[in-house]
Amino acid sequence: MGTIEERWQVLADKDEIRELTARYCFAVAEGDAGAIVELFCEDGSFQMRDRRYQGVEGLRQMYTGAAAGTTPKPFIQNHVIEVDGDAATGRCGVEIRMVNKGEAYTVAGHYADTYRRVDGRWRFASRDFMTYHWVPLSKGWA
Amino acid sequence: MGTIEERWQVLADKDEIRELTARYCFAVAEGDAGAIVELFCEDGSFQMRDRRYQGVEGLRQMYTGAAAGTTPKPFIQNHVIEVDGDAATGRCGVEIRMVNKGEAYTVAGHYADTYRRVDGRWRFASRDFMTYHWVPLSKGWA
Amino acid sequence: MGTIEERWQVLADKDEIRELTARYCFAVAEGDAGAIVELFCEDGSFQMRDRRYQGVEGLRQMYTGAAAGTTPKPFIQNHVIEVDGDAATGRCGVEIRMVNKGEAYTVAGHYADTYRRVDGRWRFASRDFMTYHWVPLSKGWA
Repeated sequence: MGTIEERWQVLADKDEIRELTARYCFAVAEGDAGAIVELFCEDGSFQMRDRRYQGVEGLRQMYTGAAAGTTPKPFIQNHVIEVDGDAATGRCGVEIRMVNKGEAYTVAGHYADTYRRVDGRWRFASRDFMTYHWVPLSKGWA
Repeated sequence: MGTIEERWQVLADKDEIRELTARYCFAVAEGDAGAIVELFCEDGSFQMRDRRYQGVEGLRQMYTGAAAGTTPKPFIQNHVIEVDGDAATGRCGVEIRMVNKGEAYTVAGHYADTYRRVDGRWRFASRDFMTYHWVPLSKGWA
Repeated sequence: MGTIEERWQVLADKDEIRELTARYCFAVAEGDAGAIVELFCEDGSFQMRDRRYQGVEGLRQMYTGAAAGTTPKPFIQNHVIEVDGDAATGRCGVEIRMVNKGEAYTVAGHYADTYRRVDGRWRFASRDFMTYHWVPLSKGWA
């Protein structure tokens, strides 16, 4: 099981990674693309359906474009994380409230994440967004 | 307060139990009854209203029957856990998106759980589901 | 980084603070104003828009009045906490299901919290509620 320091470190890493995803939600809710991009590695990526956005410029484009237009408010939960040194993988559920062309939309799904410790701080290496549904609130998910 | 190793263990146990409930959500969302049953003790139980499902066969029946038909997507939060050696109790809030006869339903409530460590792994000993409401999304919870 | 005991303490403090916010949700969902007030410091405060409620009596009034009438069910997530000895600050997302004049309402936002350790137990020193929206479910957040 390793020394107590090593065992403590795993819990501390998971705690920091959970807060990383929380900070992501706040930065997205505030539409602060600069703050969002800061949470990713320099070569980090975001994938959604068949679209992939990579690197500082790719991510900034994504988060100032389509994402910003829908003013998404993500709420993350159900987080499972596996840490391996300076790398980690995780999966977390998400519910998102957004607006599309003046209509309230509700989204549910999960993120399949990889994380990497860079300069002593955990960041997203990749974030793949899998949706259960993405529907107008007035229509629902049936 | 115990040794640092004992104190670390309580936090590690709570971390694992929170992930147990997260794994439950993913297994339910995927409709994977086998994976769900694996998260319970062999004599584990699930209770909902006046119905109780117990043991591997009882649980499998429940999660391949009514539950599977409604394709529930649970999201768990607000988790309080008390650990006592190889046993623990917990309470966690839940919001569930499901479909009933072609109609979107939304459910909110909480689980009153007991957990047990079996073969070095935490599992559900019992999971009692208490609902605040269970309503068509189009009607709402008023 | 401090001794292992000090490092453990920070994680234990954050764990207890997360559970404090979970207990808040359960006490609110149960409409138990006494239990809610117990989670605050004696001079603790709750702020919402331009209204501020402070101290045992102020808080009890708030949680037995307007809040109780709407039977709110809060779900908290996305929690970031910074601990500094016996004081801490935090931010957490929240979704609330409530009823207003017979109509289902949905609320999303976050709490900007400060916490204080009093008599060995973490409590809310202040809780400021910032809303993204507060709307009838039938209308949505567009």
